[in-house]
This record gives sequence, structure tokens and C-alpha cells, in this order.
Amino acid sequence: MEAKTPKDSLTILTDLVLPGETNYLDNLFGGELLARMDRACSIAARRHSRRIVVTASVNHVAFNKSVPVGSVVTVEAKVSRAFKSSMEIYVDVWIEDRQSGQRTKVNEGIYTFVAVDETGKPVTIPQITPETDLERERFDGALRRKQLSLILAGKLNPNEATALKALFKV
Amino acid sequence: MEAKTPKDSLTILTDLVLPGETNYLDNLFGGELLARMDRACSIAARRHSRRIVVTASVNHVAFNKSVPVGSVVTVEAKVSRAFKSSMEIYVDVWIEDRQSGQRTKVNEGIYTFVAVDETGKPVTIPQITPETDLERERFDGALRRKQLSLILAGKLNPNEATALKALFKV
Amino acid sequence: MEAKTPKDSLTILTDLVLPGETNYLDNLFGGELLARMDRACSIAARRHSRRIVVTASVNHVAFNKSVPVGSVVTVEAKVSRAFKSSMEIYVDVWIEDRQSGQRTKVNEGIYTFVAVDETGKPVTIPQITPETDLERERFDGALRRKQLSLILAGKLNPNEATALKALFKV
Amino acid sequence: MEAKTPKDSLTILTDLVLPGETNYLDNLFGGELLARMDRACSIAARRHSRRIVVTASVNHVAFNKSVPVGSVVTVEAKVSRAFKSSMEIYVDVWIEDRQSGQRTKVNEGIYTFVAVDETGKPVTIPQITPETDLERERFDGALRRKQLSLILAGKLNPNEATALKALFKV
Amino acid sequence: MEAKTPKDSLTILTDLVLPGETNYLDNLFGGELLARMDRACSIAARRHSRRIVVTASVNHVAFNKSVPVGSVVTVEAKVSRAFKSSMEIYVDVWIEDRQSGQRTKVNEGIYTFVAVDETGKPVTIPQITPETDLERERFDGALRRKQLSLILAGKLNPNEATALKALFKV
Amino acid sequence: MEAKTPKDSLTILTDLVLPGETNYLDNLFGGELLARMDRACSIAARRHSRRIVVTASVNHVAFNKSVPVGSVVTVEAKVSRAFKSSMEIYVDVWIEDRQSGQRTKVNEGIYTFVAVDETGKPVTIPQITPETDLERERFDGALRRKQLSLILAGKLNPNEATALKALFKV
Repeated sequence: MEAKTPKDSLTILTDLVLPGETNYLDNLFGGELLARMDRACSIAARRHSRRIVVTASVNHVAFNKSVPVGSVVTVEAKVSRAFKSSMEIYVDVWIEDRQSGQRTKVNEGIYTFVAVDETGKPVTIPQITPETDLERERFDGALRRKQLSLILAGKLNPNEATALKALFKV
Repeated sequence: MEAKTPKDSLTILTDLVLPGETNYLDNLFGGELLARMDRACSIAARRHSRRIVVTASVNHVAFNKSVPVGSVVTVEAKVSRAFKSSMEIYVDVWIEDRQSGQRTKVNEGIYTFVAVDETGKPVTIPQITPETDLERERFDGALRRKQLSLILAGKLNPNEATALKALFKV
Repeated sequence: MEAKTPKDSLTILTDLVLPGETNYLDNLFGGELLARMDRACSIAARRHSRRIVVTASVNHVAFNKSVPVGSVVTVEAKVSRAFKSSMEIYVDVWIEDRQSGQRTKVNEGIYTFVAVDETGKPVTIPQITPETDLERERFDGALRRKQLSLILAGKLNPNEATALKALFKV
Repeated sequence: MEAKTPKDSLTILTDLVLPGETNYLDNLFGGELLARMDRACSIAARRHSRRIVVTASVNHVAFNKSVPVGSVVTVEAKVSRAFKSSMEIYVDVWIEDRQSGQRTKVNEGIYTFVAVDETGKPVTIPQITPETDLERERFDGALRRKQLSLILAGKLNPNEATALKALFKV
Repeated sequence: MEAKTPKDSLTILTDLVLPGETNYLDNLFGGELLARMDRACSIAARRHSRRIVVTASVNHVAFNKSVPVGSVVTVEAKVSRAFKSSMEIYVDVWIEDRQSGQRTKVNEGIYTFVAVDETGKPVTIPQITPETDLERERFDGALRRKQLSLILAGKLNPNEATALKALFKV
Repeated sequence: MEAKTPKDSLTILTDLVLPGETNYLDNLFGGELLARMDRACSIAARRHSRRIVVTASVNHVAFNKSVPVGSVVTVEAKVSRAFKSSMEIYVDVWIEDRQSGQRTKVNEGIYTFVAVDETGKPVTIPQITPETDLERERFDGALRRKQLSLILAGKLNPNEATALKALFKV
């Protein structure tokens, strides 16, 4: 199975923020944005694996800036690293100023999807070869995040989490 | 005001077809697809004009192929020609096969938007310089479609519709 | 198969404009109105043909006037002409003033639907006998629109489009 | 203030049952049908009073027959009786068979709306003159229902509910 | 089949009022609230009967107070009485003040559900033993409401409606 | 400002999974579940702080088990720890078997919200006093998660993350 690049799975979902999707401050509701990010990530995971994919976890989503009603929101998702049958997808969210056209990053998130066959059994997927500096940085971080996730779930002894321990310079 | 290219307004809306958006044959409902196309076109019109934009008309949307539930649908909109304050936007719709990744065109449409100021008054917008053969073909067709639209609305004498008459080799 | 009148397929969809269906100017979103029109037209097509029907194309929808949130919107669809298995449906959209009760036309559109059997194969449908002047005018126009559509799709030689050529008094 | 007829407020909402509006038996969800009926009734109340109207109560809605996905559903609402500022609206729900075109009644309901001014204060509204036998029957029943509602709310002594007592032949 | 208490079926649905669910006065739309109440009642009916349940009727829903956008709304449903295969469910709706935390009752309703097997045939369900004063009051009222409903449907002679006649002290 | 207990903010959102909220495997769509969890957490955060609250981040959501259409889903959210103006909310998701009534945990998540005033400026909030063993465990974990989050954001030197380092027994 040939490795793929993050670009191969790039998924762009540009859409408006309609009034029915806002909270009581007239900003895009957090839950609605999470749903859009989940859909974009699931398409990226499917494009990488060419399999049925299911959400395994949302590892981290930071809401840095609110998104006002009427905004044009662009959600961009790319597979950052593939493991045996699970993939980490990194998703960035941008809004753009109508008059200047300038883009501002408002949000980013990390989702994990698993590729399965028709019976729901995990299947092996292609690996990822990062190409840009940012892709390499996210590729490296993905291993630390996976180890941390296993530790928190009690499935890995912290002292075996080599990539993570390096962070603490132990 | 400097002319822009169609590429400057390219808007990509890739999203899933969820069960709640289907008709009784389990295909994406025509009305829901029209709504997605309208949103993508309105963003393209806004990116070109950097103004508030409102839908003026849907000139033609052909449904060639049904879109089954679970499909990944990509709507791509680009301004094909700009007039004084109105713009024609051409929108193509694709689905992709999960296993092969191959894209199939399912639908295309032509929308017209008008750029307005805060009071709703039409404003002048940049012109379009087409770059590719397809963009040039759509740019030329846009004038014929505009003349036809004016004739049908009783605002243009058919014999003054020079671009359209050429079609009939009169 | 006996011919029917346009009135036989008349479909009325009166509903409110809720805040969740509006754009950032607090008017009914173009895409949502297109979806309502599509649903009303599909019911009219079904009432005429008593068959499964699928959207073939949206020929023209003109947005003449915006529809503010809270409006009562009436969508009225009638089959304007039937061909072998396709039908043209003409749809008018009205709003009404709450205090005076007066109706204002805001929008009209032309949709084409095809009647199919359970396997998706087109089937023959009853013809239309127009009754009023407006119905006759739309019935006549439907042939011109069909010819134009075939020309634009490259399926008809413009010089064979007799109904359309008459428009240009050639 | 001149009396009006029930027909003056007739509101027809014909629409499809889409898959996103169904319960786990693939029938139209009760709650969604209640919402459609409420919207149709509110429009009928507004057409009668030409005022802002708010839902006061749902007096009775009987679900006699389920409505399968893909059905064409027609909701028809008419004001059955007007009191000082409140109105009773009677709403009937029909589905139609695609092949025979025959209509079947599936549901009926009784809603009460109140007409208010911009500050929410109840305002006087025109009275109702029923025209058909069914309209007269519903007009008479409306008084019994109002008395019953006042008794249940503890606002009327049962022995003063003349119209209702007649029912018990006391 | 052992009797159950109303508490056994208590269902709590606390959720926000989002802008897409409001009417033109920026309050929760009546129809949307009816739909939430219907869903909560259907869960309570299912918890009591452990069967498939379908809405039979909405007996009474009084809207006493409007629910502004941004409110936290709590819908609480409990089975108030069980008959052979039908159940009456009483549902109370509360909002709470953000700053003081105080709860205000805005609405209550009475729904009837029927428990059915996979073929839609009614099945016998457990009876209810009320525990609190309010539960006993609602339990007693349920019989009167059932008799009234049968009378209005022409299925019970008013003079046989013993529980109801007692109300009129006949 | 007096400390509160997690129970004070307990928020229960029990609702059905409708067909319009499912993915192409007929299970509740991940994004829709994230949205429900976000709404329940925002209400818990508001009940604890009695302030306007905004989503700051989704720290972790694990999808352990799919949720089939027709399920009764209960989302339960409680504030697990309060910092100066931010709160961690722990949310558990359960489904219940219709016939046995047994509850199964399908999902859990950790969200962070910030309490703000009308101008969006963070405000001080009450602290949390955990009461049960599970609440104490989550209270302790919240500090480690906050430190980890600050490290990943480059705002804390890993060697100062005392609670986190203890995990690695360094």
C-alpha cells in the first residue's frame, strides 16, 4: 500500500454562517462548528483511506475567536498522520473580511477517525508522507498525542511513551 | 477598478449528503442541492465584488445524475462574467467514488447576483478577464444569456440581441 | 391517456419565514426559497402524472423582491405544459401584507420534472389543455423554452427551433 | 368591525414528508406535524385578525393514521370561531394517494390563538359567520370547548357552563 | 405485570433556545416547543411500557408565557396514568433565570401515547401507582379527560361518563 | 464567592435520535452528538457561573460505541473544576435498551468554557467542591489537563507542570 501526502486528502468546506446556526450573541454556535469540522474531517479520512470511516475521538478543538453571523467560514481538513487503521486529521478554520478579503484563523482542531470494512472491522490504511514544514510538525506531534491518549485511557505505561517523555526532557 | 480573474472568486463547498437531506429515493433532494449551490455562488459573488450581494436569478440548473445519500459532494462556483453591478456565476457539482476516488460531474448551474451597498442600491463592480478556454467559453455565453433574459423580460428587442442572433446564424 | 388542465395540478404551499431561514439582511435566503419552490413543483408534477417524479432542471427563477422574516409566503405551482415524459411547471411566489391583506408577487420560476417508473425509466404522461389566457401564454412559451434548452445543450440545430425563431421574426 | 367567514382565513400548506422529519417507523414524526399545524393555524389567525398572533393553547389533536415518508401532506386551517381577542382554529390534515389521487384524512386539531398589539396586549378582533354545515358545527362546539377549558383552569363554575351542560342533558 | 410509579418514567430534556427556533418576536416558536414536548413524552411512554409507542393525541397544551431566545428550557415528562394500552403523559415546561437561577413554569401539556408491537397492534402495559399529591391529582383527572375524549369522539354516552359527571355535580 | 458542588450544575438532555441526524450507517452522526454535548455543557457552565459563557475548547471526546437511529440518548454534563474564569465540564453520554431499560455508556467528553460579562471580558467564578469519588478523580485530572493544554499551546514550561509530571513519576 503506497504512502500518500496530506495534500491528497485536503478537504475544503466553505460556507456561510446563517442566522439559524448562531448562539444568543449572534456568533456561530460552537456545536454547529464542531459538526462542520467533523464532516470535513470525515471526508478527508475517507479520501485518504478510500474506506468507510467513523469518528473515534475529538482530541482537541480550541475556539480562539468568535465567528459572527453572515461570515464566510472555510474549514480545511488534511490527514496529518496515519497509524494502522486510525488517522489523525488536523483541521483549520478561517474567516475572511468581506471588504479586504483578508483571512483570519479562528479555530483549529484535531480529530481521529478509524477506517472500517462493511462489518465495522478496522482495516489497514496507507501511511502519510508529510511534505511541508507545518505538515512535518503535525506529523511528529501526532505520535505524542496518540501516546498521551493511550496513557489517559490506561492502555500505555507513561514510562513507555518515548515521544511524550522527550517533551518533558526526562 | 482592476479586472479580476474567475479563479479569484473560486469557492469550494465539499460536504456529505446526510439522510435528512434526501428525497424518497434516498438521493439528495433537488431543493437542498439548489440551496447549497446558491450559498456557494453567493460567496463567489462576494469574493469578486467585496460587497453585499443578493440573488437576482437562477438562469439554468440541469440535474443530470442523482446524488445518493452518503455521497461526498463538491460544489465549485466561479464568477464567469461581470456586468455593471450584476455578475453571472457558473457552478459545477461533482461527486467522487469512495473506492476509486474518481470524480463524476452531476450537475451544473448558472446564477446571477447583484452587488449592492448598505441601502440596497446596486454598485459598480470589477470586470472579469477569463484565463482558460472553458472560462472564455462561459464568458462569451454569459452575454447571450443576459440578452435572452432581457428579451424574455420584455426589456430588449430581439433584433438588438446581437450576440444571441449570431447563434441563429441570421 | 386523457389530457388534464393546469388547475388539476395546482399546489399551494403557504408557510411562514422563520428566523432560521434568513440571510444576514433578515430576508428569506434565496436557497431556502428555491427549495420550497422545488418541493411545490415536485408535488404539482406528481399530481399531474401520478408517477414518481425527479427534478430535471430549473429553467429560470427571478428574484424580484426580498421576503422579510415573519412574512407569510405562498408558493403556487401548476404544470404549464407536458411533453412526452417531461413537464414544465410554472411557480409563482407571493407575500401578503399583514394589515391590508394585499398580495404582492415577489418571485416566479420555471422548473422541469420527468416522470419515471420504479426503475427510473421515463414514462408517458397526460398532455395539458390550458384554460386561462395566462395558462395559454405559458403553454406556448414552454415550447420555446424547451427548444432553447435543447439548443444550449447542443441537441437541436437552432435553425430547426421553429417556435424560437419566430421570436426573432426571422 | 365587520364579521368574516371561515373561508376568509383558509390557509393551505401542502408539502412533502422528507426523511429528516420521520420517526423510527419511517412515518412523519408527531412533533413535526404539530409544528406544521401550528404554523398553518398561526397564518389563519393572522389572516382573520390582521394582527400579530400568539399560540394560546392546543386544545386537541388526534392522530388517527400515520403519515409515511414521501407522502404529500395537506394541512388546511380555518378560524372556526372568534371571541373577544382569542380565536379557535380548526385544522384538518390530509394525505393523497399518488396513483389514484384520492385524499384520506389523517389528523385533525384545534388550536387557540390570541391577537395582540406591538406591546403584547390583547386586541379586539372581527367575529365569525359560519357558512357551511361543518363550519356551523365547529362554531357551536367552540363555545363548549372554551367553557370546558375555563372550567379545567378553575376560571369558570361548571354550573355556569350552559353550553357544556347541555351536552350532559342535565 | 407490576405497576410502576410516575417517577419511573421521568424524562428530562434541558436544552437551549437557538435563534433558528424562534418566531418573529424572538421567542421560541410554538410548534418547535410542541415538538420537544412530543419527543420527551414519547420517551416517558417508552420508559413506562418498554414498547414501541406512537402519539395518539395531544389533549391540551397551554402556552402561558413566552420563551425568549437564549433561554434554558427544561421539559419534564412523566406518565400520569396508564389504561389498557394507552398512557396519559403530563409534561411541564420550565425556564430558569440566568442570574438568580430561579425556575418559572411557562407551559404544560397532556399527551396520549399507545404502546404497540412490531405489527402496530396495541399491547397491554403496566398500571401506574401515583406517589405524590400532584401525581394523584393528575391520575384522577386522567380518567375524566379520557371520558371527555371518548364523548367528543362519539364513542361514549355522556351519561355513562361517571367521573366527568361528578365534575358537574349532577 | 461561595464554592458550589458539581451536582449544582448537573444538566440532563434526554432526546431521541431522529433519522435526519444520522450518518450513512444509520447511527447518530458524530457532529450532531458533539453539538448536543456542547449545548448541555454550555448550560452546566451557565448554571455554575450564572454568567454568559462561551466555548473555549473541546479537550477530549471519545466515541466508544455507535448510537443507532431511534435510540434514547441521555447527555449528562457537570462542572468538574473551576479555575479563575474558566471551567472544565465533564459530559457522559448514555443510551438505554428499550426492552430491559438498561443504560450503556457510549461516549464521554471534556469541554472548557469561559464566563464573560456583556462586553466579553472574563469574570471570576465560584470554585468547585467535589463530593463523590468520581467527582474528586475528575477534579484532580482537570489540573493535569489544564497544564497539558498550556504546554501544548507553548504557554507553560513542561518542567513547571507539577501535576502532569507526577503522572510520569519523574
